[in-house]
Amino acid sequence: MNYPFASRTQSFESSAVRDILKVTQQAHVISFAGGLPAEDIFPVEAVRTAYDKVFSSGNNALQYGLTEGFIPLREMIQTKMERKGITSSPENILVTTGSQQVIDLFSRIMLSEGDVVLTEDPTYLSALQVFHSYGAEVIAVHSDQEGMDPEDLRVKLEQYQPKFVYVIPTFSNPDGKVWSAERRQHLLDLCYQYNILILEDDPYGDIQFHDDEYYQPLASLDEQRTHVVYTSTFSKSVVPALRTGWVTGPIEIIQMMAKAKQMNDLHSSSLDQQALYYLLRDFDLDSHIQTIRREYYLRMTIMRDYLAKLGTDLFKCAEPKGGMFMWVEANEEINTTALLHQAVEKGVAFVPGAPFYVGQPKYNTFRLNFSHSSPERIQEGMDRLVSVLLKPAHSK
Amino acid sequence: MNYPFASRTQSFESSAVRDILKVTQQAHVISFAGGLPAEDIFPVEAVRTAYDKVFSSGNNALQYGLTEGFIPLREMIQTKMERKGITSSPENILVTTGSQQVIDLFSRIMLSEGDVVLTEDPTYLSALQVFHSYGAEVIAVHSDQEGMDPEDLRVKLEQYQPKFVYVIPTFSNPDGKVWSAERRQHLLDLCYQYNILILEDDPYGDIQFHDDEYYQPLASLDEQRTHVVYTSTFSKSVVPALRTGWVTGPIEIIQMMAKAKQMNDLHSSSLDQQALYYLLRDFDLDSHIQTIRREYYLRMTIMRDYLAKLGTDLFKCAEPKGGMFMWVEANEEINTTALLHQAVEKGVAFVPGAPFYVGQPKYNTFRLNFSHSSPERIQEGMDRLVSVLLKPAHSK
Repeated sequence: MNYPFASRTQSFESSAVRDILKVTQQAHVISFAGGLPAEDIFPVEAVRTAYDKVFSSGNNALQYGLTEGFIPLREMIQTKMERKGITSSPENILVTTGSQQVIDLFSRIMLSEGDVVLTEDPTYLSALQVFHSYGAEVIAVHSDQEGMDPEDLRVKLEQYQPKFVYVIPTFSNPDGKVWSAERRQHLLDLCYQYNILILEDDPYGDIQFHDDEYYQPLASLDEQRTHVVYTSTFSKSVVPALRTGWVTGPIEIIQMMAKAKQMNDLHSSSLDQQALYYLLRDFDLDSHIQTIRREYYLRMTIMRDYLAKLGTDLFKCAEPKGGMFMWVEANEEINTTALLHQAVEKGVAFVPGAPFYVGQPKYNTFRLNFSHSSPERIQEGMDRLVSVLLKPAHSK
Repeated sequence: MNYPFASRTQSFESSAVRDILKVTQQAHVISFAGGLPAEDIFPVEAVRTAYDKVFSSGNNALQYGLTEGFIPLREMIQTKMERKGITSSPENILVTTGSQQVIDLFSRIMLSEGDVVLTEDPTYLSALQVFHSYGAEVIAVHSDQEGMDPEDLRVKLEQYQPKFVYVIPTFSNPDGKVWSAERRQHLLDLCYQYNILILEDDPYGDIQFHDDEYYQPLASLDEQRTHVVYTSTFSKSVVPALRTGWVTGPIEIIQMMAKAKQMNDLHSSSLDQQALYYLLRDFDLDSHIQTIRREYYLRMTIMRDYLAKLGTDLFKCAEPKGGMFMWVEANEEINTTALLHQAVEKGVAFVPGAPFYVGQPKYNTFRLNFSHSSPERIQEGMDRLVSVLLKPAHSK
């Protein structure tokens, strides 16, 4: 039977890159591809204890929950938001299945066929796929290490009147950059001027390497809480398996997203939400995040030093100030998309840069994840990677 | 700010009924409204043990998982499906956040603006909302206690060429009915003839009161597995808080739904999926389901007998052979929508029948859930309910 799929599925096609990366889960492949946290420092016993508390709290814990999320968890999130300077209340917080679901639900309530979304370039691949699946046109704003180019942003806001601007201002995926304070304020000012919403995606904000710097979320600058919808997740700072993220923003938007979520899945796992509540209440998450920061910083430096040794005529990268990714621009002769297959055969995986671009891709870029592999595996993986990338016969 | 929501949100409006039912969670209200399982028989200790096994299985258990779901759980589901006569394999099973997500993802890959979906009448309210949210037109097929009217079905398949037919053939929501074997086969034959897909929603199939009857899932009749997409959930037979459902169907459809799910939320909680795997492996779920059946049957009979005592000129209902709901047609003078507010004030909640209708609603119908309240609370709740419904001043 030829199934009569909806036309929107034409944008669903799996990329060649994703197909290759599917085979990278074998143990012999050292993967710098996925955005996976370090398993060896997961707080397993603390999570176990938290679940035990859920099961001891009464049978009602196993019943259906609210679409909006477990109220005591939303109160914990409110406190967490306050520490970042973001005013919220349990009423304008919606708990979701990771922040991926926030991107999807927000798109679902905002985007009609032909609407425009402005993004950085490069930006998060799976967000692009969501925007396209709702028939939106994605327009890239010229971006550098400081954020979006102010003039190009102004021109495109004026020209396209987008539904929203999607940004990852702190330790971006894929390129690990941090927006400057000026560019943050500038984006917000322009969005006030043109009355455009911002979706601020902040999954990595907690994983900051240097204590002496402070990166202010856009949502904290949006004092009236009218223009910024902010999302983050516990996947990176606690554990991914819980699949618990959240969104906070203007109450009308959060309520509309809750209606969409009710149709989508009624509510996210309430066992996970309750366990997370006990974990946030009783476990020293701040110390744990310090451990993550130290460990990821160490792993990042191994990768950074390895590349630096080879010289900037071969590999250029800005040192990430946090997060999980290093973005590398190789010598122009090197086509990373073409070389992925050989790298996987050699037992190392990465993500070529091209699919992250909205505009003209740079085929000599690639993304490396430094959080998942142990220092020894990073060293070994970089040996394998460089042996493939620098093999003259395989260059473009 | 006036937020520029997508036009699809115009179908999202919360119903007056839902707004009233939101206040029914206070302890003094006896609620026959929601579709909640009985908390007092939740297998809490077995669930706790299952989670313990997850945490003892290694840190990798807390890492990101596959979009399609935890493979050993999918193998368990395959075995469960085989016992119902449904052929499947882990490759054409997708694990979801409840079967609500299946309805949503299937609609997302199938429905374009203006497409038609055929349904029973009355049918599951939240499915109707999903279909409408994708711009579909929902057309009701005349239905009686045996299922859809064969001639009306044929005419409407011919006339509308729907994208799919949505049915709950076993212990339907809201009206608790079971389709006859003839009507099942007839629906399938017609869908083969017109080449139309069927979405078979089977959340209640396990909760069967009488051992001597067998209700064959449509998917088991679809021997080539080409036309029926089958969904069920562990929410009713294990616990709702896990939010774990699944779908099985033609591989092309399952793969397309997996792509949609990847954009929607990457994957459902993998802790829950792993715990469910251990639970299915080590816990006697069959005995537990027997306990549920006995207990729900007892509760149903209390409600049934209460209504029968009042006479069929006041309340008519067919005795449910399973599931969680009793559907009552009251004397025509009684408008259940109008009386809901007063019932809630009296400390009892139900769902008026009108919102479940696609075509002309019967305002004298209502749905009662018999699974959630204890026998004593059912008795007390029925006293309250009848005192409101039979108060002459409050009838229509």
